[in-house]
Parts: sequence; C-alpha cells; structure tokens
Amino acid sequence: MAKDIIMSGMRPTGKLHLGNYFGALENWVKLQEQYKSYHAIVDWHALTTAYEDTSQLQDNIMDVALDWLSAGLNPDKCSIYVQSDVKEIAELFLLLSMLTPVSWLERCPTYKDQLKQLEGRNIANFGFLGYPCLMATDILVFKAKYVPVGEDQVPHLEMSREIARRFNTIYGDTFPEPDALLTEAKVLPGVDGRKMSKSYENAIYLSDTPQEIRSKVGNMITDPKRIRKDDPGSPDVCSVYSFHKIFSQLADIEDTAQMCKSGTIGCVACKKKMAQNLTAFLEPIRSKREQLEAHPDTVRDILNEGAKKARETAVVTLEEVREKMNLKAAE
Amino acid sequence: MAKDIIMSGMRPTGKLHLGNYFGALENWVKLQEQYKSYHAIVDWHALTTAYEDTSQLQDNIMDVALDWLSAGLNPDKCSIYVQSDVKEIAELFLLLSMLTPVSWLERCPTYKDQLKQLEGRNIANFGFLGYPCLMATDILVFKAKYVPVGEDQVPHLEMSREIARRFNTIYGDTFPEPDALLTEAKVLPGVDGRKMSKSYENAIYLSDTPQEIRSKVGNMITDPKRIRKDDPGSPDVCSVYSFHKIFSQLADIEDTAQMCKSGTIGCVACKKKMAQNLTAFLEPIRSKREQLEAHPDTVRDILNEGAKKARETAVVTLEEVREKMNLKAAE
Repeated sequence: MAKDIIMSGMRPTGKLHLGNYFGALENWVKLQEQYKSYHAIVDWHALTTAYEDTSQLQDNIMDVALDWLSAGLNPDKCSIYVQSDVKEIAELFLLLSMLTPVSWLERCPTYKDQLKQLEGRNIANFGFLGYPCLMATDILVFKAKYVPVGEDQVPHLEMSREIARRFNTIYGDTFPEPDALLTEAKVLPGVDGRKMSKSYENAIYLSDTPQEIRSKVGNMITDPKRIRKDDPGSPDVCSVYSFHKIFSQLADIEDTAQMCKSGTIGCVACKKKMAQNLTAFLEPIRSKREQLEAHPDTVRDILNEGAKKARETAVVTLEEVREKMNLKAAE
Repeated sequence: MAKDIIMSGMRPTGKLHLGNYFGALENWVKLQEQYKSYHAIVDWHALTTAYEDTSQLQDNIMDVALDWLSAGLNPDKCSIYVQSDVKEIAELFLLLSMLTPVSWLERCPTYKDQLKQLEGRNIANFGFLGYPCLMATDILVFKAKYVPVGEDQVPHLEMSREIARRFNTIYGDTFPEPDALLTEAKVLPGVDGRKMSKSYENAIYLSDTPQEIRSKVGNMITDPKRIRKDDPGSPDVCSVYSFHKIFSQLADIEDTAQMCKSGTIGCVACKKKMAQNLTAFLEPIRSKREQLEAHPDTVRDILNEGAKKARETAVVTLEEVREKMNLKAAE
C-alpha cells in the first residue's frame, strides 16, 4: 500500500535550537520511517517578513539543511528541498489565490498579531497577508494527508483545509483536506526559563560546542528560592531539571530530584551532570554536522535532488489543477 | 540600436469588437513596426473575476488570438502568447507581492468599483485584490519601457511604476518605470449610442458577417429628433455618423453630413452606405480569420512560439531578480 503523505517546513532563520528539535524535527525523523515525507526550507515564507534584508538568507538555508541532516532526516527516506526550487508552488499559489477570500486571510489570528509585533517594519504587504494561502499551497501541492504541526499552527492548517474544500466544491474533488498530526511535544524552556527562542537569545543550538553548552547551562535559572547548596530545592520550578528529564537516564533523574529536594546536591554539580548528558546527546549531531559542513556541495546536491523529487509530484498535481480549472496544459 | 520594449494584454472574454480594435489593437499593429512588442492573452487575470466558471476559457483564448492575428498582429514582429504559458510571471508575482503594500491595492480605484458592480459574485478574493500587482508583473518581467493603454488604465500603470520604484529602492536598480504610451483613441459608440461593450450587447465584432453588420447597423440609434427622412438632422449626435467618420472616405463623410443636415438623405440610406464601408473595412480581417479558423493548430503553434520568445526574456529578468534578492539560483 502506498504510504500516506506528510508535509512540513521551517523558515530559514538560521541554526536550529533544542526547541526546534523537540518541537518538530525529532518527530519528523521518526515519521520518515512511516510516511512519504516532504520537508521544505520555506525561503519564500521568510520573505513575507524579512524581504528587506535577505543578506543572510543563503547561509540560513544552509544552516537549516545542515541541522536537518545532522539530526537524522534521511534524504533517501524523505524529500528535503528549498521551497523556491519548486516553481510549481508559485503557480499553484497564484491559482489558489483566486478563490481565497481576503476576509479569511484578514481574520487569521497571527496576521494582526504579527503586524503589531513587527510594528515599524513595513510588513503590511500583499505577500504577508497571503502567507496562509502560500502555506496551503505548500501542503496541497503534494496532496498531503497529514501535517505534523504544533497546537499553535492548527488555525493555519484549518485555512488550508478550507481552501482545499473550496477548490473541491468549485472544480471537483481534487485535494484531500490535510489533517494535523499532533504529537506530544517535549517541553523545554530556554536558559532563562522563558520559551526557547532565537529572538530571546536564550537558546541552546544543536551545533553548540561542549564549551558553549557548559557556559549556557552554567547560566541557567534554577529554583530562585534556593540560595545555598544545602537548601532544599524544588525541581519542578527548575529549568535544569526540565533538561534532566530529557537528557538524563531515568534512575539519574530520580536521584537528582531526590538530592535536590534534600539539599544534598548543589546547583553547580547538578548543572555539570546535566551538561555532560546534553553534550553526549548532541555529540552525534554535532559530529555529523562537522562532516557535512566540510562538504557543502553534498548538501546542495541533496537539496537539489529533494527538489527534483518534490517537483515530480508537484507537476502532476498542477497538471490536474490546470485541467480542472480549464487552463491551458503546460507546453 | 535595440528597440524599446512595450507590453500590453487583453483578458480572454471572447471575440473582439470594434471598440477593442480602435481602443488598442489598431494601435498595437502600428507599434509592432517600431517597438519590441509583447502581447499577452491574460488568462490568469480572467480568473480574478471569472474563476467560478471557466468552461469558455479556451474558446475565448482562441477567439482573441484569431482576432489579433486577423487584425494584423504579426508573430514575426511581436510576441503573442498566453499569460499562463509564461510560468516566470507566477514566480515574479509572488516575489513582488512581498513588497507591495496591501493599502496600495485597496485604494486602487477599480477595486471597490468592481466589488460593487459584481456584487453577489464572490470576487472579494486574494487574487482579485492583487491584480494590479499581477499586472505590474506582466509588464516588469520584460522590463517594458512603455505600455500602450487608455486613459482609464493610467492608475494601474501608476502602481506598476510604484512597485518598480520600490523594488529598485530595496534591491538596487533593476526595473525601468514603465510609461504610458497614450494614443488618441478613435471614439466609436455601440449601436445603442452607449460605450461599445460586450456586456451591453451593443457591439459590432471583427468577425461579424456582412448580414450581421447590416442588421446591427440597421438598428443603430441616429439623431432622435429626426422623424421623417426629409427632417434636417444633426450628424454630431448620430452614432452612424461617428462610424462614417471612421469607415467612409473623407469626401463621402462631408457629403453625408451635408445631406443629413439638409434632409436630403434618409437614415436608412445613410446606414446602408456606412454598412457597406464598414463591411469593406472588415472584409480582409474576416477573410483572414476564416483561413486561420480552419487551422487552429497553426494558431496554437504561434501562441506556443510566442510564449517561448517571451520566456527567453522573462527567464533573464527573473534570474536577475533572484540574484538581487539573494534567492537561490534556478536549478
């Protein structure tokens, strides 16, 4: 039986951090065993907010590709490509734009949010308004059945479903309505206890060196009520403990919690232990990344090959769409 | 010296009438001698308002192509193509959308107009909102210097100029700001005295037979104050006289005006004379059309060849745009 198709992408904003890994990438690596997976580095999406300065765009694309491959996305199992290499997406976007009500886009929860957040930057542009339609195109062009997303992306996915439904109603059954593939995401705060985010400068990157990890972990916020190392601590309010829960062995986790509560381990020692485990966890990713970094042409070949595979499917969808809309077949 | 480039298009809404001919086509036929001309049958634009029923689209495209060729557009001198064959337009549209403010599109004079006029049809869509951006793309993709347009199209052209300017400011000098090539258009009313328009059902088509012309001219509105054929008439308020001024010989025009004013020619005779001249004028167009209709494949070849020529230029522009925006070069 043919595998079900999933599609998901990331904007090229630079090196990926642990939040990106546990929020999406770890899941994708598992899913590639079971699904026909398309994963896009969505550079056109990046333009919707960052069109004014694109000087880092190519470096950022390379960083995402390196991190994906290092973390275990396997180009023999899934298609990894740069969105703008799949020209069919531009054409399908134009076609779907014809039947996407402006009101759907205006009511998109993140639209007005972002407009406010990025006030002062000129982003109230046509392309920015249209990004949920572009996202729908990314998904529908492969007739993806599932989209592995976080809870916060569900409204966007709802719009993809509505656009699919509208197309099907007008031109006849063509697109499956993509479903969210929600997975329990591991919660991992940034080093300051807030959500891990590049813009908060509180992130630990997949490519951080052991020294960087040690230093960042050393600065992590622990239980603020714990002043001396023999004060009893509350692991549940401690960021380091959140990390232990992911990177340490089960027995170790329980031990650590116990020792913290009884004041028999200090934060410095506890952090050191966690940093070792985190470093060990990241070691294979970082060493794979180092190898790949030495061969950027190999990475480029992988992206080009991924785009080729993606286009093979996209061309077929687009041909069907043109036929259904009574447009001229491609020459 | 390289010829200056002009670009202009028409939506495929079916057979062309005399209003289309004298409003644009006649001018294009002259301009192809002097300019490097691109003329598009803009099927994607047709979708902005007519996406719900595309059943006639291919017939309409063929009708426009037949009329263009019959009226004298020469594929050896200019590029005649179907917009959707030039895929580069879809990609450039997406890129230009990133820097086109929504407010520019919303304030476009025809946007709210059309929304009102076409009330009840679901056209408040993203594609419809963006059509001035798509129009800018049509022009800029060839770096056209001039756009032969009527006065009513000048605001749209102004937006193309603003989009070009904005791109140039952000990414460096790339696009010339296209200028309107305004020409004195001959005024030709419909058979009911209103503006000639397909939707008013008052049009005389380039492909009308002599019988159809006789019948339509027979129904034309003349000076409403003239009841009997020996009443003195006022040629200046007579639609038939507007036609005489275009289709009759100079001496004939003066004679007819004189005879009308003195009540020595009746409207029936006057119409008959004009219908003969109009028929004679349309005869070469209609006979050429008949020949071409018998060979639709030849017409298709011409359109495909035109798209090929258009793409040769479009590809170069797009490559430059990608480079300036720091996007990945095409594979």
